[in-house]
Amino acid sequence: MAHGLAMVLGRADLTVVVNTADDFEHLGLHISPDLDTVCYTLAGLANPFTGWGQANETWEFLAALEKLGGEVWFRLGDRDLATHVERTRRLQAGETLTQVTRAFCRVWRVGPRVLPMSDDPVHTVVVTPGGELAFQDYFVRRGCEPIVSGFRFEGIETARPTPGILEAIKGAQMVVICPSNPWISVDPILAVPGIREALKSRVVVAVSPIVGGEAIKGPAARMYRQLGIEPSPLAVARHYDDLLTGLVLDRRDEAKAEQIEHSGVRVLVTDTIMQTESDRGRLAREVLAYSI
Amino acid sequence: MAHGLAMVLGRADLTVVVNTADDFEHLGLHISPDLDTVCYTLAGLANPFTGWGQANETWEFLAALEKLGGEVWFRLGDRDLATHVERTRRLQAGETLTQVTRAFCRVWRVGPRVLPMSDDPVHTVVVTPGGELAFQDYFVRRGCEPIVSGFRFEGIETARPTPGILEAIKGAQMVVICPSNPWISVDPILAVPGIREALKSRVVVAVSPIVGGEAIKGPAARMYRQLGIEPSPLAVARHYDDLLTGLVLDRRDEAKAEQIEHSGVRVLVTDTIMQTESDRGRLAREVLAYSI
Repeated sequence: MAHGLAMVLGRADLTVVVNTADDFEHLGLHISPDLDTVCYTLAGLANPFTGWGQANETWEFLAALEKLGGEVWFRLGDRDLATHVERTRRLQAGETLTQVTRAFCRVWRVGPRVLPMSDDPVHTVVVTPGGELAFQDYFVRRGCEPIVSGFRFEGIETARPTPGILEAIKGAQMVVICPSNPWISVDPILAVPGIREALKSRVVVAVSPIVGGEAIKGPAARMYRQLGIEPSPLAVARHYDDLLTGLVLDRRDEAKAEQIEHSGVRVLVTDTIMQTESDRGRLAREVLAYSI
Repeated sequence: MAHGLAMVLGRADLTVVVNTADDFEHLGLHISPDLDTVCYTLAGLANPFTGWGQANETWEFLAALEKLGGEVWFRLGDRDLATHVERTRRLQAGETLTQVTRAFCRVWRVGPRVLPMSDDPVHTVVVTPGGELAFQDYFVRRGCEPIVSGFRFEGIETARPTPGILEAIKGAQMVVICPSNPWISVDPILAVPGIREALKSRVVVAVSPIVGGEAIKGPAARMYRQLGIEPSPLAVARHYDDLLTGLVLDRRDEAKAEQIEHSGVRVLVTDTIMQTESDRGRLAREVLAYSI
């Protein structure tokens, strides 16, 4: 979705704010999975099949690490690894995550401004009946198997929005909440003190990540169910609650449109599943045209 | 040379003690260049052309790091990198360098016991007219260009020999000082408190790293010259001084044999330049046969 918006808008007209509550330390490296996926995608470097990592990646490092008995549950490709090593070095040298991201985006020729939600550490903790799990432990190592009973964002109370986010929101004609996981990818951003308040006066349009009762990708639908909520665009509308000006639904969920509009949220029904680059551009154009 | 000895001797009959004063921290990783070269060589993984790193290495990580503006003066291949990452993780988890090396040698099927000279940190400092330089700064980044006026081994006073070294020396029929750089590869080992003393009662045979006034490899000859000493097997004999029982010279230096024998050191003259695996085995056999 961000890629679609980047294709349609000029580089100065788009700011992409990215979740960093998935960030974690692994093998002594600072890894920012969501930032990397967004930047690699905007740079045209992303692996289109996995949804993470780089295309045409090689795996010599990981194969050698596995032989030595190292930790290989988090898949680090040879080129991807350079991102983490250089990010870690720069952070240790005193740069902020925002500065590092800006430098990388310059190298990768990423047009739009990409901002981590905060330069302060925030860590998603997944609450399960068996106890709390660090996010990547739940997500990658345990393959989203444990049942979820809630989430905590450790450090969120004292996290400050990255410089530029509040200004970008204030100056925005429109804020698009991309069809990402509401619980673990969008909620942390909304929970950074100041961001939700700034959004209240804006045109905010979400694209539903739930289509036909299932998530486009990842565990969002399963999380809704485990938390006792039927996964649907209606659940998404309720999730974002009073923030939303509009919600974009897939045609398969057209039947839910009326009920959502009753709650005061405008609805756009279209094809929301993006399989090609042109799908991304088309959806971005429709979303932008609809709300202006 | 160590590889030749390993080919000739049974795995239980050889202990290889390796310099760790070249070890340094780079990109947050603990790198042990000499240990790696020795282990890779004994494992059949070494790059025969460079003298460091692994054969058939790939460089995707380094190429990506260079694009990001990272530090690439120390060449880390994709597979080699796994060694440093896993070593660093284990050291941080509390293992000693000796334990890490043992675990790696098991994976790599290295027969002989390989012991770092010490588990305590020692750092070679190169003294130059322009000031002191960290070893890898001198050796790799500045390509051994600065003039050398001396060496210091920081931390050597409190370094303890790795458990097993003194016992191995005491039980050894023979100690071979391989044709490595006397100033920076052998001297640090000899300077670890206790090692020189333990050697005094043993049969110690050095193979001269200086052949025809030049070093077989690396800056040893240049260092001798810069320190005001003519590089020759005689200089090597004087370097190791009263430790030596015998010195192995190349045929090209046969003329020096008499003078060296005058100083009470037995001399073996043979072909000392090892270009093939069979050269290594042959030299090892000759050295072992000569002194028993």
